[in-house]
Amino acid sequence: MTKNTKVNAAILIIGNEILSGRTQDTNTGTIALWLNLIGVRVNEVRVIPDVEATIIDTVNYLRKNNNYVFTTGGIGPTHDDITAKSISKAFNLEYEIHKEAFKILEAYYKVGEFNDGRQKMVWMPRNANLILNPTSGAPGFNVENVFCLPGVPSILKSMLGGLQNRIVGGKPILSHTISLRTVESEIASSLTEVQDNNKDVEIGSYPFFQAGKLGVSIVIRSENQFKIDKCSSEILEFINQKKIEVVVR
Amino acid sequence: MTKNTKVNAAILIIGNEILSGRTQDTNTGTIALWLNLIGVRVNEVRVIPDVEATIIDTVNYLRKNNNYVFTTGGIGPTHDDITAKSISKAFNLEYEIHKEAFKILEAYYKVGEFNDGRQKMVWMPRNANLILNPTSGAPGFNVENVFCLPGVPSILKSMLGGLQNRIVGGKPILSHTISLRTVESEIASSLTEVQDNNKDVEIGSYPFFQAGKLGVSIVIRSENQFKIDKCSSEILEFINQKKIEVVVR
Repeated sequence: MTKNTKVNAAILIIGNEILSGRTQDTNTGTIALWLNLIGVRVNEVRVIPDVEATIIDTVNYLRKNNNYVFTTGGIGPTHDDITAKSISKAFNLEYEIHKEAFKILEAYYKVGEFNDGRQKMVWMPRNANLILNPTSGAPGFNVENVFCLPGVPSILKSMLGGLQNRIVGGKPILSHTISLRTVESEIASSLTEVQDNNKDVEIGSYPFFQAGKLGVSIVIRSENQFKIDKCSSEILEFINQKKIEVVVR
Repeated sequence: MTKNTKVNAAILIIGNEILSGRTQDTNTGTIALWLNLIGVRVNEVRVIPDVEATIIDTVNYLRKNNNYVFTTGGIGPTHDDITAKSISKAFNLEYEIHKEAFKILEAYYKVGEFNDGRQKMVWMPRNANLILNPTSGAPGFNVENVFCLPGVPSILKSMLGGLQNRIVGGKPILSHTISLRTVESEIASSLTEVQDNNKDVEIGSYPFFQAGKLGVSIVIRSENQFKIDKCSSEILEFINQKKIEVVVR
């Protein structure tokens, strides 16, 4: 992997439901694609259970080894939502009612509906910065470089727009894909040569099935469009020589 | 999370394409659901890039902290497939041609088709045990408690059946789901009480949208059916009191 030495992130998915296989995580892809556009590269993803000690240890490791950490899950009203409390402990901060969040939810719910469960969602680490939630009211928050988002994919998506100005990225990571009617082993050695000639570009090779036929997508990634174009033309050269068909996916 | 103190596993997804958001991982769910059935609980999942040092360090950490490790990805014929070599280094084993794998692929391909790229797929850690591949020939392998599977979901699925006898699990992890037409904050405090009364059972609460309406699924997990039933009846009791509708999903 070409290192984006400038700005890196880790994604931390908190939730037993992903580990049990009951729920398919899609937040990783959502966050990663969004980060690409603002020049932040995802270095690693971890999925961990709703266990306080595990959340604390993992957050403390990831926040020291990445420019940004994005957590998903565990900020709702029920007993298994322990992210805010765990983050407070990770940073050695008081876990307390966040006045601004309280005001937001007090205004969001009808009189009498802002019950105990809902009030749990305004308990946060002291002085956390809120991440506004245009879908369902209850905000996420960040402490330093750790940004805590909800697990429900549609709500998470709606909150990313408001976050954009708070993430300082590098150059956007560009990519170009060439899809071929072939199998990997037919192009493996030629592709290795191209990678060896272009060490600072990331070239990935991914088999696919489409309409009952086998294919391979070659994905070229770099911050530099000229380097991508150079790689791309070297690949098309051997593709032409081998008379391999380029396909649209 | 209730600890299954008997048998635990980690899943290690190796591949830049997941970290970039280009490809949606589905192998985690496939492996986790299969492991539930044979009594193995997934403790954590990590997604890491195609970087040798990262693979070596992560495998060495995970194999010492879990009964089993399942890796996916990086065992194909192209330059970015470096799992087998990295596992060899993690275990301090020679990376060499595996004779049995060589015979399998020699027989699988037509004369003249077993080219250099394909021959790369028979390089493995010395004395690795093969995991047969009924879909596309090229086998996976395991060394001690680390099982290396391909990244293509359909091929991975086809290989799990042959693995079953080599994984020694505990009691199967059972679960029961109750889906409700409500929102989490309406049931949060009652659910906390049930969890407090049943500390060795894992109770999760997951909001959903269905046909334009909000709902919550409560998932009860344990190795013990009696404990699940006890929890379930306590939950149904407060559901009835609150006159919340149970729905089918």
